[in-house]
Amino acid sequence: MNYPPSIQKLIDLFSKFPTIGPRTASRFVFYLLRKPKEEIDELIKSIHFLKERVKICSFCFNSFEGETALCPICLNPSRDRTLLCIVANETDLLSIEKTKKYRGLYFILGRMVSRLKKADIEKLRIKELEERIKSHPEIKEIIIALNSTTEGEATALYLERLLKPFGAAQGKKITRLGRGLPVGGELEYADEETLSSALEGRR
Amino acid sequence: MNYPPSIQKLIDLFSKFPTIGPRTASRFVFYLLRKPKEEIDELIKSIHFLKERVKICSFCFNSFEGETALCPICLNPSRDRTLLCIVANETDLLSIEKTKKYRGLYFILGRMVSRLKKADIEKLRIKELEERIKSHPEIKEIIIALNSTTEGEATALYLERLLKPFGAAQGKKITRLGRGLPVGGELEYADEETLSSALEGRR
Amino acid sequence: MNYPPSIQKLIDLFSKFPTIGPRTASRFVFYLLRKPKEEIDELIKSIHFLKERVKICSFCFNSFEGETALCPICLNPSRDRTLLCIVANETDLLSIEKTKKYRGLYFILGRMVSRLKKADIEKLRIKELEERIKSHPEIKEIIIALNSTTEGEATALYLERLLKPFGAAQGKKITRLGRGLPVGGELEYADEETLSSALEGRR
Amino acid sequence: MNYPPSIQKLIDLFSKFPTIGPRTASRFVFYLLRKPKEEIDELIKSIHFLKERVKICSFCFNSFEGETALCPICLNPSRDRTLLCIVANETDLLSIEKTKKYRGLYFILGRMVSRLKKADIEKLRIKELEERIKSHPEIKEIIIALNSTTEGEATALYLERLLKPFGAAQGKKITRLGRGLPVGGELEYADEETLSSALEGRR
Repeated sequence: MNYPPSIQKLIDLFSKFPTIGPRTASRFVFYLLRKPKEEIDELIKSIHFLKERVKICSFCFNSFEGETALCPICLNPSRDRTLLCIVANETDLLSIEKTKKYRGLYFILGRMVSRLKKADIEKLRIKELEERIKSHPEIKEIIIALNSTTEGEATALYLERLLKPFGAAQGKKITRLGRGLPVGGELEYADEETLSSALEGRR
Repeated sequence: MNYPPSIQKLIDLFSKFPTIGPRTASRFVFYLLRKPKEEIDELIKSIHFLKERVKICSFCFNSFEGETALCPICLNPSRDRTLLCIVANETDLLSIEKTKKYRGLYFILGRMVSRLKKADIEKLRIKELEERIKSHPEIKEIIIALNSTTEGEATALYLERLLKPFGAAQGKKITRLGRGLPVGGELEYADEETLSSALEGRR
Repeated sequence: MNYPPSIQKLIDLFSKFPTIGPRTASRFVFYLLRKPKEEIDELIKSIHFLKERVKICSFCFNSFEGETALCPICLNPSRDRTLLCIVANETDLLSIEKTKKYRGLYFILGRMVSRLKKADIEKLRIKELEERIKSHPEIKEIIIALNSTTEGEATALYLERLLKPFGAAQGKKITRLGRGLPVGGELEYADEETLSSALEGRR
Repeated sequence: MNYPPSIQKLIDLFSKFPTIGPRTASRFVFYLLRKPKEEIDELIKSIHFLKERVKICSFCFNSFEGETALCPICLNPSRDRTLLCIVANETDLLSIEKTKKYRGLYFILGRMVSRLKKADIEKLRIKELEERIKSHPEIKEIIIALNSTTEGEATALYLERLLKPFGAAQGKKITRLGRGLPVGGELEYADEETLSSALEGRR
C-alpha cells in the first residue's frame, strides 16, 4: 500500500526541503490535511507573496521588501561604510546583526565551496564582490566571516588570495573572525587547532 | 534587524509545522527564495490539490483519492472482514500495512488522549467506532494498535473499557499489540515493565 | 610532554575497562590522585576481596558469597525447578530478577556469539548446559532470554537447534522472550520486524 | 535479589569515579571478575604505586615522578620564565602542552569555583599563586587559561581582580584565552557572545 498520488507528490516536494526526510515530510502533509481550508489558503498566499514581494539588494544581495534598490542596512546613513563583512548567506548576516557589535556593510557571497575548483567557484558572487570593492574606495577593512568548517575554510582561503592585491596595493585590511573557545567550551575537549588559536588570540 | 514581513510571515507559518522551530523554518524560506518560479508554482499547486482531491474513507477514515466512498483497503474483497484494527492516524496504519502481516480492516481514531477527561475524549471518533462495530457483526476481533507511550496507554485503557460490553455480550475478542524487547533491544537496558511483558509473552 | 609512567600505566589499565577510553581513564587517575590514602587503600582492599570472596555457583554460574556450592537462588526451596532461564551474564539475570515475574532457575551462558563458528561456540558453556538439562528431568520449560541484537539472535538460533532434541524426545518446551513494542515505543518509529512480532503476539 | 556484598561494595566505589553511574560500575566489576588473578594484581599494584611514586611539583603543582622537587617542565631551561599560565588541572595543562604553542611555565589552581563565596575560594591555591608571582619578578605575562563555562568564567573573574594590583604596579600583563568560533563552528549556531568575541578578536 502506498499513499494516494496527491499526498505522495507533496511528500516528495517537502522531502527536498533542507534537513527534511520522507518521514517528517509525511507528517507535514497529514498536518496540512487536518487544517481548515482558510489556513491552507493563507499558506499558499504567503508562499506566493514571498516570490512576488521579496527583492534582492543591488549592493549586498540581502533580501528585503520595499521600493528602493538598496536594502535598509545599505540605506542606513549611520552604518560605517569603511567596513565590509563577507558572509555566506542571509542567516549568517542576521546572526552577526544580532550581536549588535558590527555597524558596517555586508556582502552575501551566496554560498560556500568545498573545493577550489573553477566550476564551484563560479557559483560564488566573485565578480560582484570585486566590483563592489573596486568602486568603493572608502572600504578600509574587509572581514571574511565564514564558518570554521572545511567548506568555510576553503572558501576563506580562496577569498584571502583573491583580495590580497587590494590589501597590498590599497592598504585595505583583510581580516577573519577570531577563533577560540566558544562560550561553554572546555579546554579538555577542545581540539589542538582551536586551543592554539585561543592561545595566539589571548587578550 | 528583522526579516522583511513576507519572509517573517512564512517563517511563522512553517514554525507551526510538526517538529519545526523558527531556525529550520527560516531555512525553508531561504530555500524557497532560491528556487525558480516554476518550482514554487508546483509546490503551491500541490498544496492546493491536496485539499481538493484527497477524500476521507466513510468507513475507516483513511485518506485516499478516487470516485468511491470507501478507500482501496475497505473495498478490497480479499481483506479479512472479521478483524478490525484501531490505529491513531494514517501513518500508523501505513506502518502496519508495511509489515504485510495484517489483512483485516482498520479504523482511524484520529488522535490519542493523554487524560481521560470528557473534553479530550470527545476529540476521538468514539461514536463512529461504536457505530461501525454495531453495524458489522462479522467483526470477531478488535485489535487496539496504539503507541506504548503514556498517551497510547491512556487511550487504549479507555477503549478497552468502552469495548468490554461488545466482548462480553457478543464474544468479540479485544486484543492489544504484544509488548516486549524490540529488534536490537538489550535486557540490560530494558525497563522492568517491558521485560515483564517479554517474559509473559514468551513463545 | 607525556604523563609520568605510574600515571600512564594506570591510564592504560583503566582504558581496558568496558566503555572507557583514554580520556575518561585519565580522569579516573587524577580522581584517585586527589583522594586520601585511606580511600585508595579501601579501593585496593575491595578489588582484592572481589577475587578472594566471590564464588561461582556450581549449577547456574551466578556469582555469590558464602560457604555453599550453590548460589542463594539455586538453594531457595521456593523457586520453581521446572523452569530454566538461559541468560548471557549476571547483569541480565539481575534484570530479570528485578521484574519479580520469574521464579524459576537460571543458567548463565557466559557470553553471546556473533557467528556460529566452532571457535566462538566453544567459548559458551554448552557442555555444562546440556549436562544440567540431562541431569534435571524435572525441567519442563527452557526460556532463552537473550538480547534481540544480532549477537543475541545468532546465539538463540544456535541454542534452539541444540535444544530441539530435548523438546522432541522429552516434551520440554523451548521458548524465547516475546518481542514487541517496548514501553514508550511508537508504531511510527518501530521497524517492521518488531511490529510484525507485536501483531503476532497480540493478547 | 541483590549483588553479593563484595561485588556491591566495589560497585559503590566505582560509582564515585567521575562520569560513572551504578550500571557502568557493575560492568567494571564483572569485567574484573572475569580477569585472571595476575591482571587483578597488576591493577592493585598500579593503584598502589600511583600514591607512592607520583609527586607534586613544588612550583606548579603538576604531577610527576622523580627525585627532584620540581617537575620536568619547571626544570626545563628552555622554557620561557616570563610567562605563567594558570590552569585548573593537569588535564588542561596537558591539552595546552599538546598544542606546542606555549613555552612558558604553568600554575595548577587545583579546581574552579562556581560562586565567589569565601568557602569556595579557599579551595583554590590562591595564597600559593600570589607567593609564586611575588617571588618571581621575571614573570611578565599571566595567562588565565580556564574553561569558557560558568565555573571557568567566575574563577577567571576572581583571578583578574586578584591579579589587578600586579598588573597596575608592576606592569605585568594579565590575559585570557581568546574566544571565538571553534574549529568546525558555524555562525548560524554560534551564540551571540561567542560571535561578538569572534568579531572583536578578528585578525
